[in-house]
Amino acid sequence: MVSLENIYHVCEETVPLYFAMILGYLSIKLWHLFTPEQCAGINKFVSKFSIPLLSFQIISTNNPYQMNTKLVISDALQKALAFFGFLIVTKVCCEKSMDWLITGISVSTLPNTLIVGIPLLRGMYGDEAVRLITQIVVLQSLVWYIILLIFFEYRYLKLISSEVATATQVTQVTDKERNSNSDISGELESGARQTREENPEEKVANKTAPKTTLSFMLNVGKKIAVNPNTYASLAGLVWSLISYRWGIKQPIIVNNSLRILSDGGLGMAMFSIGLFTASQSKIIACGARTAVLSLVLRFILGPSIMAISSYVVGMRGLLLKIAIVQAALPQGIVPFVFAKEYGVHPDILSTGIIVGMIAAVPIALAYYFLIGVI
Amino acid sequence: MVSLENIYHVCEETVPLYFAMILGYLSIKLWHLFTPEQCAGINKFVSKFSIPLLSFQIISTNNPYQMNTKLVISDALQKALAFFGFLIVTKVCCEKSMDWLITGISVSTLPNTLIVGIPLLRGMYGDEAVRLITQIVVLQSLVWYIILLIFFEYRYLKLISSEVATATQVTQVTDKERNSNSDISGELESGARQTREENPEEKVANKTAPKTTLSFMLNVGKKIAVNPNTYASLAGLVWSLISYRWGIKQPIIVNNSLRILSDGGLGMAMFSIGLFTASQSKIIACGARTAVLSLVLRFILGPSIMAISSYVVGMRGLLLKIAIVQAALPQGIVPFVFAKEYGVHPDILSTGIIVGMIAAVPIALAYYFLIGVI
Repeated sequence: MVSLENIYHVCEETVPLYFAMILGYLSIKLWHLFTPEQCAGINKFVSKFSIPLLSFQIISTNNPYQMNTKLVISDALQKALAFFGFLIVTKVCCEKSMDWLITGISVSTLPNTLIVGIPLLRGMYGDEAVRLITQIVVLQSLVWYIILLIFFEYRYLKLISSEVATATQVTQVTDKERNSNSDISGELESGARQTREENPEEKVANKTAPKTTLSFMLNVGKKIAVNPNTYASLAGLVWSLISYRWGIKQPIIVNNSLRILSDGGLGMAMFSIGLFTASQSKIIACGARTAVLSLVLRFILGPSIMAISSYVVGMRGLLLKIAIVQAALPQGIVPFVFAKEYGVHPDILSTGIIVGMIAAVPIALAYYFLIGVI
Repeated sequence: MVSLENIYHVCEETVPLYFAMILGYLSIKLWHLFTPEQCAGINKFVSKFSIPLLSFQIISTNNPYQMNTKLVISDALQKALAFFGFLIVTKVCCEKSMDWLITGISVSTLPNTLIVGIPLLRGMYGDEAVRLITQIVVLQSLVWYIILLIFFEYRYLKLISSEVATATQVTQVTDKERNSNSDISGELESGARQTREENPEEKVANKTAPKTTLSFMLNVGKKIAVNPNTYASLAGLVWSLISYRWGIKQPIIVNNSLRILSDGGLGMAMFSIGLFTASQSKIIACGARTAVLSLVLRFILGPSIMAISSYVVGMRGLLLKIAIVQAALPQGIVPFVFAKEYGVHPDILSTGIIVGMIAAVPIALAYYFLIGVI
């Protein structure tokens, strides 16, 4: 059973997160401390330094030779079930099926494990839970986010191809008509131009199709290469493989050097979410109905699929509880960053982050109780 | 004697500081990551949140009922000796004697104890040194910085008075002449206007003198009231007075809430110094001769006066060593912030910070060896 003491432990871990987030929120709404450009500076610091160093710190202390096989399989099974489920539903129901497929998967299966998950689960189930959720962080950073990026790049490519096809069909367009499309096609053109520059000897309008696989893979590779978080996660994995294989520890100087910035990562990240929340003109940017739908996906569908996957795989007891609660955490940040970059429902993801963050502790506690009773 | 192991301990504590500073420097010079406005956002975060919370954290854990009397007296004696010394020298030698008096005191007696001092002295002499330097931090934050602020305000007031006197004498000034002075007098006018608004019923040009004491104290009070670091230091002192008197501890939730941002304070502060260093067009902004003079004041005169004061007061052994080494730390940040705000030799102070930071570890180690041998 869950006692008052348990709840107090959860508060010890989560109230500080909200303290940092609220300070960030108030520094905009109440104190008018930062201009939007200054906020961008803080956010950039968080995304380029705090979070990557925090990821490295967490992933490098995970023993990759002692991953929990059941947890890894059920995590993969959850993603696969969500993928096929949304594939069928979006094909049948939605016009832009690819967009809704990506958003559905993002919202239902990719929670915020690094920033919110670790402290929250430590408060609930202690250090054993941290060891397990760290494994989820590893998979998320190095497998699921990269697959998600591939989805986004694939969708972008299809968009370009169809645009190019349309442009070939309609060869004579008046300037006026062109201008009305300038917003989106401007962006698309710059993308196409990039592809073109890589293949200067060929005309893209005729030969896009055969070249796409190469340029597609190049684009994905480039995105991964410029993402400091992927770097840091990969470095963390490599270091953990070495250190747990041969029992090598980081020299204290190196460890201290990383910790001097990663120690503040959690607080900075939450502060930055507070800034982000305050800078939105609407908290529920995507409209009430879509918001409710996305919250159902996040907090009910996601954990349900995880519960089924985990049970099927044979998980029971504490492991099963941890697997379910971690699936009921608020929306992860990285899928929102991608969604914004590629212009695929960023409003839904931002609503998921903000509302999810506000509701995170009550919802997690609700699951904690429910599971505790069962 | 100082062993290689001692030096390694010093590196364990100081290399991380430089790692953060170099990342800050490179993020401007090499990666062009942040615009000046974005840097301002990060610096503002550091000065409004990181440093005040770090100050609170440090000061609130200092036992104010067990201050080392000898250390407190010798610290005060050092400041008094520097004050009277510079008072005589600047009266005799300098044209703007008040400016040089303030700068002389800032450069020779106000080192960076909070950010650089604590880790460096922990590396050298262990936790006992931290306990002692924390007492210096308390005095600096709550006594010396406030006295320094009073000096700056007093100087500013004299400047306004003489400006007002000049304006009264020279009643007929052509517009052209006015314009040539617009830079400085614009600033002064805005200051005078502020004073005026507080006393709307009177004409300032006639009655400045009798009102100055009040407005002077009001100005100092205001400056203190809007400075989050003074707030935080005072709150830290009050909390330490309560907690050590009645043995009350901070609830873990409160402690965690403060630590979530203050833990990153050290790294953020050094990162921000790195940004600052990279954004200066010249590292040695004040010219080589003045720079050498200021470094002599900082690293030789300051520690020498401290050594004399401490010896006279009766300090011997470890306490004496710590007192001398802490006086040989690089230039403190707060005096630079004031110097910039009031336009009193900010170039000298900024040079002191940057060159001092680069030279800090070798110089501290030199003192460490020297004192170790004696």
